[in-house]
Amino acid sequence: MSTEPQFIDLLRAIATDPAARGLADDAAVLELGGERLVLTQDALIEGVHFRRDDPPGDVAWKLVAVNMSDLAAKGARPIACLMSYGLTGDRNWDAAFVAGLGEALDAHGAALIGGDTVSQPKGEARVLSLTALGRSSGPIPPSRSGAQADDALYVTGPIGEGWAGLILLEHGRLDPPELIEAYRRPRALLAEGVALAQVARAMMDVSDGLLIDAHRMAAASQLAVEIEIGAVPLSPAYIGTFGNDRTARMQAMTGGDDYQLIFAADAEAHLPVTAHRIGRFRPGSGLTLTDNGEQVPVPDRLGWLHRA
Amino acid sequence: MSTEPQFIDLLRAIATDPAARGLADDAAVLELGGERLVLTQDALIEGVHFRRDDPPGDVAWKLVAVNMSDLAAKGARPIACLMSYGLTGDRNWDAAFVAGLGEALDAHGAALIGGDTVSQPKGEARVLSLTALGRSSGPIPPSRSGAQADDALYVTGPIGEGWAGLILLEHGRLDPPELIEAYRRPRALLAEGVALAQVARAMMDVSDGLLIDAHRMAAASQLAVEIEIGAVPLSPAYIGTFGNDRTARMQAMTGGDDYQLIFAADAEAHLPVTAHRIGRFRPGSGLTLTDNGEQVPVPDRLGWLHRA
Repeated sequence: MSTEPQFIDLLRAIATDPAARGLADDAAVLELGGERLVLTQDALIEGVHFRRDDPPGDVAWKLVAVNMSDLAAKGARPIACLMSYGLTGDRNWDAAFVAGLGEALDAHGAALIGGDTVSQPKGEARVLSLTALGRSSGPIPPSRSGAQADDALYVTGPIGEGWAGLILLEHGRLDPPELIEAYRRPRALLAEGVALAQVARAMMDVSDGLLIDAHRMAAASQLAVEIEIGAVPLSPAYIGTFGNDRTARMQAMTGGDDYQLIFAADAEAHLPVTAHRIGRFRPGSGLTLTDNGEQVPVPDRLGWLHRA
Repeated sequence: MSTEPQFIDLLRAIATDPAARGLADDAAVLELGGERLVLTQDALIEGVHFRRDDPPGDVAWKLVAVNMSDLAAKGARPIACLMSYGLTGDRNWDAAFVAGLGEALDAHGAALIGGDTVSQPKGEARVLSLTALGRSSGPIPPSRSGAQADDALYVTGPIGEGWAGLILLEHGRLDPPELIEAYRRPRALLAEGVALAQVARAMMDVSDGLLIDAHRMAAASQLAVEIEIGAVPLSPAYIGTFGNDRTARMQAMTGGDDYQLIFAADAEAHLPVTAHRIGRFRPGSGLTLTDNGEQVPVPDRLGWLHRA
């Protein structure tokens, strides 16, 4: 139904400045006055990216964290944010949101410096948008397209917890709390991103699903990627709730809302932070999955296509 | 009904970075790497800031222009934009929007470098948000609060055309075309802003209405302001449609959607661009109106309070 890919193709035709990176990356990278600025803008829609009954402070946290995660994926440190906020006339919700926003900005070291408030028609889904500005002081921020054949594919940590939290909430459950927290208050891996930008040839955050995002990295790098599903890390809370079989692993790898970082690096490279090697890039195209070395079918749906 | 002023007060308590300018200015001003960056984010809501039947290319123009106008008010030159766009499933509308967006960005010299597309629930009012980044190479960008007692108040050009265009459209009229154009395709006064930033002690764009915005500038500067309504410039198209009497003038001065610049400057200062002297700042507080020197009542409604 959604026209998102076609729409982005239209935008791409006018976004020809190199800073736009072809609208194919998590963030824009703008060289300015001796600084390398990294800019991203992510919006959240009520009912799409968060639930109507999510605590407003958690919604604020998520709005900040998803943008910080884009900065993390480029190895940038946060500087400042601007927020566009749709008022719908619920003062208690708004006040709790601002309290959470302050907490989230403090936690990530970003200053709120501007934005806009607008009145949305009553009863319509809240639209919240944040623009985050960061700076990169290391090498040129890794894009999605820098992977090389024979590079290893790594992920920084367990996958599937955000999806698991959403599913539990949809069934009226609030435990295990780690999984609810992973959905409502994702962590942006800022320190990890800065460190990994030194060795990653390509890097991005996993927001739409491990499989779809790894496939996007491979496609942007004009390579194929092979993932060993047994190597993909799952958390004890995830395994305790959804198990550890192939179905549970496929759900984790296609669920999205993870905000772990995936990156391509030389298989011999020394990694500055712990990460899990889950696959390899090859010449060619497409995604291959193996389970204990045996090739297994790729699911029809690799992740969220139209939500981002 | 709207909780906007209270909400902004809450935000102000967490927006303590000097770059935020207390959330009391048109834009944030961030010193970074030897550059002075000016950042603004303005959103448009369908049915609030534009009409559902406005041509999509004009909506794109307006989205760009209102943000460029904020840069103009700080004497900044545009660099780049990020857009958050709510998809509602209308491909033709989206395509026409992007065509207009490209035209508007070209006209203003700003590059599209990123953003986000999100799916809004079908049938809900479109929410479009743009973040614009500019640079100021002149003096510190004039805020709203720098006016001094005995400074003159100036406006760059005729007031009321945007409001007039909206009223005509609401009555099914498409002429005079200048007025429709003023509503749908406002001009951001970028070159004027850069030049005026050299002499203006306070400057802002008129988006909510001349009277309310002049009053805001006076309040931010802890001064009173007096406006001679006969000195406020109206365009021939406006006068030809709505007349030139006090009622017509009051409508023009409270209508909003003008995007002229108002500024405070020494009454003896040489102005680098043509502007109309319409009033004076005085010690004290509040807004006074005169008509041929005689004090006249201030209308109850000075402009748009809750829309911005």
